[in-house]
Amino acid sequence: MKAFMDKNFLLETETAQQLFAAAEKMPIFDWHCHLSPKEIYENKQPDNIAQLWLGGDHYKWRAMRSYGIDEKYITGDASDYEKFCAFAKVIPSLIGNPMYHWTHLELQRYFDIYTPLSEKTADAVWNEANAKIAAGGFTPRALIERSNVACVCTTDDPADSLEYHALIQKDDSFRCKVLPAFRPDKALNIELPTFLPWLAAMEATCGEKIDSFAGLKAALRSRIAFFAQMGCRASDQAFSYVPYAPADDIELEMIFSKVLGGEKPDALEADKYRTALMQFLAGEYAGRGWVMELHMGAMRNNNTKMFRAIGPDTGYDSIGDDAIAYPLSRFLDSMAVQDKLPKTVLFTLNPRDNYVLGSMLGNFQTAEASGKIQFGSGWWFNDHIDGMRAQMRALGNLGCLGGFVGMVTDSRSFLSYPRHEYFRRILCRLLGEWVEDGRFPQDYDLLGDIVRGVSYENARKYFNFDQK
Amino acid sequence: MKAFMDKNFLLETETAQQLFAAAEKMPIFDWHCHLSPKEIYENKQPDNIAQLWLGGDHYKWRAMRSYGIDEKYITGDASDYEKFCAFAKVIPSLIGNPMYHWTHLELQRYFDIYTPLSEKTADAVWNEANAKIAAGGFTPRALIERSNVACVCTTDDPADSLEYHALIQKDDSFRCKVLPAFRPDKALNIELPTFLPWLAAMEATCGEKIDSFAGLKAALRSRIAFFAQMGCRASDQAFSYVPYAPADDIELEMIFSKVLGGEKPDALEADKYRTALMQFLAGEYAGRGWVMELHMGAMRNNNTKMFRAIGPDTGYDSIGDDAIAYPLSRFLDSMAVQDKLPKTVLFTLNPRDNYVLGSMLGNFQTAEASGKIQFGSGWWFNDHIDGMRAQMRALGNLGCLGGFVGMVTDSRSFLSYPRHEYFRRILCRLLGEWVEDGRFPQDYDLLGDIVRGVSYENARKYFNFDQK
Amino acid sequence: MKAFMDKNFLLETETAQQLFAAAEKMPIFDWHCHLSPKEIYENKQPDNIAQLWLGGDHYKWRAMRSYGIDEKYITGDASDYEKFCAFAKVIPSLIGNPMYHWTHLELQRYFDIYTPLSEKTADAVWNEANAKIAAGGFTPRALIERSNVACVCTTDDPADSLEYHALIQKDDSFRCKVLPAFRPDKALNIELPTFLPWLAAMEATCGEKIDSFAGLKAALRSRIAFFAQMGCRASDQAFSYVPYAPADDIELEMIFSKVLGGEKPDALEADKYRTALMQFLAGEYAGRGWVMELHMGAMRNNNTKMFRAIGPDTGYDSIGDDAIAYPLSRFLDSMAVQDKLPKTVLFTLNPRDNYVLGSMLGNFQTAEASGKIQFGSGWWFNDHIDGMRAQMRALGNLGCLGGFVGMVTDSRSFLSYPRHEYFRRILCRLLGEWVEDGRFPQDYDLLGDIVRGVSYENARKYFNFDQK
Repeated sequence: MKAFMDKNFLLETETAQQLFAAAEKMPIFDWHCHLSPKEIYENKQPDNIAQLWLGGDHYKWRAMRSYGIDEKYITGDASDYEKFCAFAKVIPSLIGNPMYHWTHLELQRYFDIYTPLSEKTADAVWNEANAKIAAGGFTPRALIERSNVACVCTTDDPADSLEYHALIQKDDSFRCKVLPAFRPDKALNIELPTFLPWLAAMEATCGEKIDSFAGLKAALRSRIAFFAQMGCRASDQAFSYVPYAPADDIELEMIFSKVLGGEKPDALEADKYRTALMQFLAGEYAGRGWVMELHMGAMRNNNTKMFRAIGPDTGYDSIGDDAIAYPLSRFLDSMAVQDKLPKTVLFTLNPRDNYVLGSMLGNFQTAEASGKIQFGSGWWFNDHIDGMRAQMRALGNLGCLGGFVGMVTDSRSFLSYPRHEYFRRILCRLLGEWVEDGRFPQDYDLLGDIVRGVSYENARKYFNFDQK
Repeated sequence: MKAFMDKNFLLETETAQQLFAAAEKMPIFDWHCHLSPKEIYENKQPDNIAQLWLGGDHYKWRAMRSYGIDEKYITGDASDYEKFCAFAKVIPSLIGNPMYHWTHLELQRYFDIYTPLSEKTADAVWNEANAKIAAGGFTPRALIERSNVACVCTTDDPADSLEYHALIQKDDSFRCKVLPAFRPDKALNIELPTFLPWLAAMEATCGEKIDSFAGLKAALRSRIAFFAQMGCRASDQAFSYVPYAPADDIELEMIFSKVLGGEKPDALEADKYRTALMQFLAGEYAGRGWVMELHMGAMRNNNTKMFRAIGPDTGYDSIGDDAIAYPLSRFLDSMAVQDKLPKTVLFTLNPRDNYVLGSMLGNFQTAEASGKIQFGSGWWFNDHIDGMRAQMRALGNLGCLGGFVGMVTDSRSFLSYPRHEYFRRILCRLLGEWVEDGRFPQDYDLLGDIVRGVSYENARKYFNFDQK
Repeated sequence: MKAFMDKNFLLETETAQQLFAAAEKMPIFDWHCHLSPKEIYENKQPDNIAQLWLGGDHYKWRAMRSYGIDEKYITGDASDYEKFCAFAKVIPSLIGNPMYHWTHLELQRYFDIYTPLSEKTADAVWNEANAKIAAGGFTPRALIERSNVACVCTTDDPADSLEYHALIQKDDSFRCKVLPAFRPDKALNIELPTFLPWLAAMEATCGEKIDSFAGLKAALRSRIAFFAQMGCRASDQAFSYVPYAPADDIELEMIFSKVLGGEKPDALEADKYRTALMQFLAGEYAGRGWVMELHMGAMRNNNTKMFRAIGPDTGYDSIGDDAIAYPLSRFLDSMAVQDKLPKTVLFTLNPRDNYVLGSMLGNFQTAEASGKIQFGSGWWFNDHIDGMRAQMRALGNLGCLGGFVGMVTDSRSFLSYPRHEYFRRILCRLLGEWVEDGRFPQDYDLLGDIVRGVSYENARKYFNFDQK
């Protein structure tokens, strides 16, 4: 019987413990997250643990709703203390949920609190945590530095000025690199009401009219150049399903004109546009050596009533189940056949597709990079022991686990770096199981390289971290 | 090495054993089953174990066919003894099948027989079991009472008079509540040859002509009122796929008229009708505080030759693989946006959709109930150790396992209550593993609440068991 | 802690070790592989281990590309030694990949080499292995005989003359049966550029013009008769998705004429043709007592550039995700209703469909054979510990594991028989776990029958191995 979440948490075997000793020393390269560069720059002190935990974390909001907590105590006008107590009450029911572990890892690592959180212990934890916050060390930059983070890549719209990135980069006192990442979702979603306002924002940023598809591509190309100057080396795009509908330039310009004229494109037109734009973007990324991240399978904003009340990214998304193998293969091949396929990371939100993605990688690997096409780690609804093990086992079975670029937080919270620790413990546990079951030699040179690689070194090389 | 199916069956850890001590004392609330109220009322004595086991259990028939047993010994004219011997011969080959465990749990709990069943032991088991049957305690009511069942919800057609429910409810000597549950499948399946005969049955029950869709809705509303009077608090509907095709009233009346006139609706018309009827029904359920159960993914009657020979529910169904995320989201949202979404339990027959459903719940949770939207337990082809663990792990990872309403037998047999024991052992094993792996504190107050909740208390509250 | 890949490799429990003692004595019946009868007949001595390992194994090529090895060292003009060294360098990164185990099983069993392969040990292994090859025992026939193989079924086109099968069968010195298996993929793929050349080859083989669909069926019937004379008792067909589109003879002849006239059929026409041809073939197989193998879910030749450069079967295939439940059910039912469904083995490349297939079997079982409809073992991208366990657990949960016809190599390499050993170890481990967890009695008579059955005896009976 292991003690509750002690130093050997999840490290079931001695081999795992020894491997984790190597893993835990590695810095963090969080190459995909949703942190706000403005918040990093402004570096404000939080008032209390409820602000840190419950201010914007839709994972926690969902969990509280599932338990039956009233919205007043979630996103409503209850006090921070009341919200914290409501959350504490829910926590024991989350047995089996990664949030149970994240919560306690965060209490342990940042607050030195080892008490299991529950309704009974809520007051004690509230007081002790807040006293520690008041004593300092809980601003965004302090949390990042305490977490040994070497680099974070944020998520930025092409129309964004990146002003806060510029300000952060000028400040030599902050050791962590903060790089932008290019996220053209609003450019891709031509059928949404967000498209024309986004186009106007692009025109404002670029200082010229965009009145054709060709013009849009030129504008995006200039933004890519600017992002590259600012240190960007990754793009990210989210798809509920994978579009693949080839079309010619004339048709694409007609679709673009139609939308400029205020009409809504039909579903096929939107997919033709999306396909062509993705092909253009992928070629640009390839030309610059950027990594293209594809996040597939999120079905967003399922609750119309709550969307109207509190907007997107508030805990009303879930997992889609569209077929992806064929369109994804065709899209990637359409780039590979032109020698324009960039380094690519494929993420799926639906774990049933782990084997589709894990085998898709092998179709497009080349000597351009070790693991040129990557299978992204267990993400969002898969960011837990089962999900990360499933992803790593699929990758191991189908490809080259040793070359895996590993974990990202994908988070909006400055307290979420222990998820990298969680991931590394899960990795070391898995490798330890294999070694102690006689499936791999107990060769700590080889194993240490693998663990350091997956924890940090592979991503460092893959994203050209050392490039100026 | 653990002994074969002894008192600690599946309880691998001491924590699991201690938790099961709490679980096994809880009564059973079997809120979805296919028991016959007539059989419960008539309470007949069976002749032998073959009648109890092989009389109507298509799970066993399938298993026998898979082994290569001739249909004569399954649903044919062989003697009960011959059928029993054929089944006994098959049993060892079912290693890894839940039926292997159900069979021995039933022998142990109801017959006090601890011999593993096989061709060799068939005669001894036949004789001993039949002697015990002859000695009494094997009528439907005796078996229910011996199993500590507090309540069963049967599965009843809207046109059903519920006469046996009325008779049972008048009999104070029977301690178990027997409640109807509303199953409008025949109303929903407008494209099947069963529709018009069902409509005629409804007209007979309601005593008036149903000549419009509006008329059908009025008739169903009156039956819902009657079912509610009889204690009903749950509905159940089975879908091979999830329909979602909105239509207006005029179109719906035209589809209904067309079918009344003897024409077959096309696939889209049938889905429009089904969508509108489900929306109507869901609103009615919400108004009465009923639970809406959706059973998704069964593809039925795949073998035309055997369907013609021996009819439905004879072991020729299997798992479908249609996409469900989008239409299910749209249907649930169409009710939520009107504040008419009832408490809902989502069941999938295809375990690859565990994460789709497990994440769908979170889109529609509100403070109306703890776990207002539930993920139904591993069902039918998932009613085994792997399936129940997979469902509970998905629910744990994605939602609030502590609020889960737990197990149902979904069975046609009066001997199937040990499946609740099986489920509770699997639950306690899983929690025990987590605790002994240091993932949750060994706090028996919290754990005991969770185990009692999932075994019984959560369902009791969710279904308003105590309501008169 | 178990030693690395020793004699108890994967045999975690004593029960597993005892069961494996029974399993390892059984001969191998490799009823589906891609060995070349010509190579078996010619029986050439290889020059070195690189030729044996890297000459045609696209599994290894993919792994090397995933690591970032240049194509020169994979299928290019580097020397055998350089290719071997490149492969050795990749090997440790393949932790968690079955190739890691296959590689070491092959080194142990055929070369008596127990050194883990890596960049460091590459030279030593190269020298020792090549010395042993030079000493003899590494021709195709020697490898087959050293592996205790009783029978292999190859994969042969209907137009094939089977001349090498005839030559092998005349040679009494070779103890292993080498039987043809009928693979009509080129006949089925009417929409591909391979169709008309294949038709010409059939005309040449049959010595008559094929100018109608009826003519094609007659020609195939005559080839089936010839294959049967040559000992064939199995057919195999590969489908990326399962076609089901019924059509009448007039339409089918029109589609056939259109294609003969040089036009491309549209997607629906191709499916109508494929459906009708499969129904014809299935009926023929049933009439001869052959087994029909369906391999579903491979999406082939995803990389156009590499397809143009080095052709098919070079490591650019992956897993598809089309829905299969409905069309597969309809196809099988269309045969069963006519009493023309042959013994059938269903294989899926997408492990998410294990439960769809595992439950599909039960729809069509009859007393014609024990396990008439079989669920094929974990195949290609599932041929590893996780994949084989998942397939066996699904089969166990849903059907009759005791009747399973077990493993095939599906391989192009004469060194791949240890995959049967790997499978048997995995089987014995799984059964051992169940027994030692108290889920099945420790009855070595019953367990030994199951293990011998799944390892060899079930397939022997199912494929009528003893028939002349």
